[in-house]
Amino acid sequence: MPTISKKGQLMPASPIRKLVPYAEEAVKKGKSIYYLNIGQPDIKTPEIALQAVKNSNIDIIAYSRSEGSELYRQKISKYYSKHNIDVTHNDIVVTTGGSEALLFAFGSIMDIDDEIIIPEPFYANYNGFSTASGVKVVPVISKIENNFALPPIEEFEKLITPKTKAILICNPGNPTGYLYSKEEIQKLAAIVKKHDLFLIADEVYREFAYDGNTHYSIMQETGLEDHAIMIDSVSKRYSMCGARVGCLVSKNKTLIQTVLKFAQARLSPPTLAQIASEAALETPQSYFDDVIEEYVERRNTLISELQKIDGVRVAKPKGAFYCIVELPVKNSDDFAQWILEYFDVNGETIMVAPAGGFYSTPGVGLNQIRIAYVLKKESLIKAVNILKEALKAYNN
Amino acid sequence: MPTISKKGQLMPASPIRKLVPYAEEAVKKGKSIYYLNIGQPDIKTPEIALQAVKNSNIDIIAYSRSEGSELYRQKISKYYSKHNIDVTHNDIVVTTGGSEALLFAFGSIMDIDDEIIIPEPFYANYNGFSTASGVKVVPVISKIENNFALPPIEEFEKLITPKTKAILICNPGNPTGYLYSKEEIQKLAAIVKKHDLFLIADEVYREFAYDGNTHYSIMQETGLEDHAIMIDSVSKRYSMCGARVGCLVSKNKTLIQTVLKFAQARLSPPTLAQIASEAALETPQSYFDDVIEEYVERRNTLISELQKIDGVRVAKPKGAFYCIVELPVKNSDDFAQWILEYFDVNGETIMVAPAGGFYSTPGVGLNQIRIAYVLKKESLIKAVNILKEALKAYNN
Ligand SMILES: Cc1ncc(COP(=O)(O)O)c(C=O)c1O
Ligand SMILES: Cc1ncc(COP(=O)(O)O)c(C=O)c1O
Repeated sequence: MPTISKKGQLMPASPIRKLVPYAEEAVKKGKSIYYLNIGQPDIKTPEIALQAVKNSNIDIIAYSRSEGSELYRQKISKYYSKHNIDVTHNDIVVTTGGSEALLFAFGSIMDIDDEIIIPEPFYANYNGFSTASGVKVVPVISKIENNFALPPIEEFEKLITPKTKAILICNPGNPTGYLYSKEEIQKLAAIVKKHDLFLIADEVYREFAYDGNTHYSIMQETGLEDHAIMIDSVSKRYSMCGARVGCLVSKNKTLIQTVLKFAQARLSPPTLAQIASEAALETPQSYFDDVIEEYVERRNTLISELQKIDGVRVAKPKGAFYCIVELPVKNSDDFAQWILEYFDVNGETIMVAPAGGFYSTPGVGLNQIRIAYVLKKESLIKAVNILKEALKAYNN
Repeated sequence: MPTISKKGQLMPASPIRKLVPYAEEAVKKGKSIYYLNIGQPDIKTPEIALQAVKNSNIDIIAYSRSEGSELYRQKISKYYSKHNIDVTHNDIVVTTGGSEALLFAFGSIMDIDDEIIIPEPFYANYNGFSTASGVKVVPVISKIENNFALPPIEEFEKLITPKTKAILICNPGNPTGYLYSKEEIQKLAAIVKKHDLFLIADEVYREFAYDGNTHYSIMQETGLEDHAIMIDSVSKRYSMCGARVGCLVSKNKTLIQTVLKFAQARLSPPTLAQIASEAALETPQSYFDDVIEEYVERRNTLISELQKIDGVRVAKPKGAFYCIVELPVKNSDDFAQWILEYFDVNGETIMVAPAGGFYSTPGVGLNQIRIAYVLKKESLIKAVNILKEALKAYNN
């Protein structure tokens, strides 16, 4: 039997999917599940995007340009200008989801054994992309006590070695819901300039900023042009995760030329989805207003329900649609699995994401879970009640 | 300025796209171009696939399963059974084009500095995927004299080292048009079993086998279950290159589990395109009969026109829609560029792919070009005439 690569052996299984077999078992037993574990919103895709695909009269689904259609990139740059981000279509490479943008960024700036510093907890697939690229993740712990704010910049500085090539942040954060302030971004800008590193910002949740906070993009920071790489995606913005359209944005021309070579090798991003994505840019502001209102309500409900539970601590998210919850349990992996296997309230149970998978430092976050508030308010209330009862039962 | 990765610097630019700026210049000067350089067929996508997308009533474009929807994979396995390939949906991972299937295969079986043996000339992006994966391509030269048949198996054997992990073939071949015989596949099967290697077969042109020849898949070979990895795609089969749907097929369970981890990291293949691809499986046989008839006619026209030119040698393709043409020039890179810059017949000119980019051995194939016969017969006749006149002018 020929052997699997070391890299393939090291590839982490998704922490969200580890429990899927237990969920499937629970469903087979007739239980119904509130899925708090996934980042697939239940919000409808804008009608304008769906209609554009239906009304398109192409008769050949042909390759697009490797960097994405020119018109679409021009329209993206207009969208950015509304967010005070000044880029042209030449600074944009359309990718197959934000996922591929991350892979292209990693490939373009890092070789095997290079290091990337990431505040943890972080989006779990950063681990997968790092392993696939042979890159080492160097974590900096951010803490639930201060809502997962940027760790002191000295903590980053201590970790920089000749192998460090980049710092990666997610803003607003999955799984933390934390929204970095302008001052925090400027601290990061200063340190990447000082050490000549790239700063990658995953801004796929840009629109999801709450309580009157405005998102500050790394692309708004002057003097950072050669360092800044922004990752973006239509997945969450327009609730069209399955489109698989994202982009990588940078003013660093050498970087963009390099990314383009990776893009050419895989030929083109998906054509039908680019039609939907281009149309989605015309989504009226009222759509976002409604969506934000909905998420804020869900968040408020979720947080206030969680706070009623003894021994539970939660960081109130300012953005995205996730939060990290600290539970009075030792091992949330075991707890989450136990719920699916043995616990229900009137036939209903919950699936949560154990937070260990969002940390890279071993042993950290083991008493935490991530909850995605992508369900309706009523469901969230029922789900948190199940969590509460489950905690009682589990701890007895 | 932070530095680009070594890998990024080494990534080859696509040999097909190198000449694009010259083509754009020619168009600006008012010339019209016959594009013989690209693999984007002008054949229409089956109506049934286009309609399925229009008629779909999803209201959220959601992620599909990372391995592709179960129903779609079941239907793919039925399609394979018609081609005497016996696999279940569990042996299939749906990917974002054959391109991603290749990347997943490389990542799953090879680490940095590992080696993969490929008969050349080969599909140029194998170079890109190898560079991206840090893998070394070890070429075996196949020759125009015998239509690019499989080189003697001893040539492969000589090149096998402890770092060799796989042999990769493309069947039918891009850019050669060669269709491997059952005997050739069996020789490859024997050698990969002997040395415990993987055998990857890129079979995206399976349907395009001419003159009554039938395609023999590596998946039909018994005893090869642990070694065989098949790459497939809807791109060429249904002329839906822009869908970005392909798959990786293997009976090696450890391999499939590993591929699945790469698939999970990037979340899901495109959802709209899977709807189109699933429907495309219902495409009536008459569609393929017509397409094959069309390609055979084009091929016959192209070959007979080319054979009329002094000093031109061409291998008659038995499959796919490409052929390699040897020209009476020293450097086809220079010649192809010169045509775009300085040559036209009544305002019409041609763009061809210099074949150097399809070889990995330096200096080989420099007097060859690749022609894709994805244009109508009348256009091919005119295009070959331009080539003929260009050769006269260039050689004077
Ligand atoms: C932080 C973050 N980045 C990137 C992605 C990738 O999303 P996609 O590839 O669908 O654009 C996700 C998806 O959940 C995410 O949460
Ligand atoms: C031999 C071969 N393999 C793979 C591909 C990749 O195609 P896709 O990613 O569109 O499936 C191509 C495209 O031209 C090809 O010619």
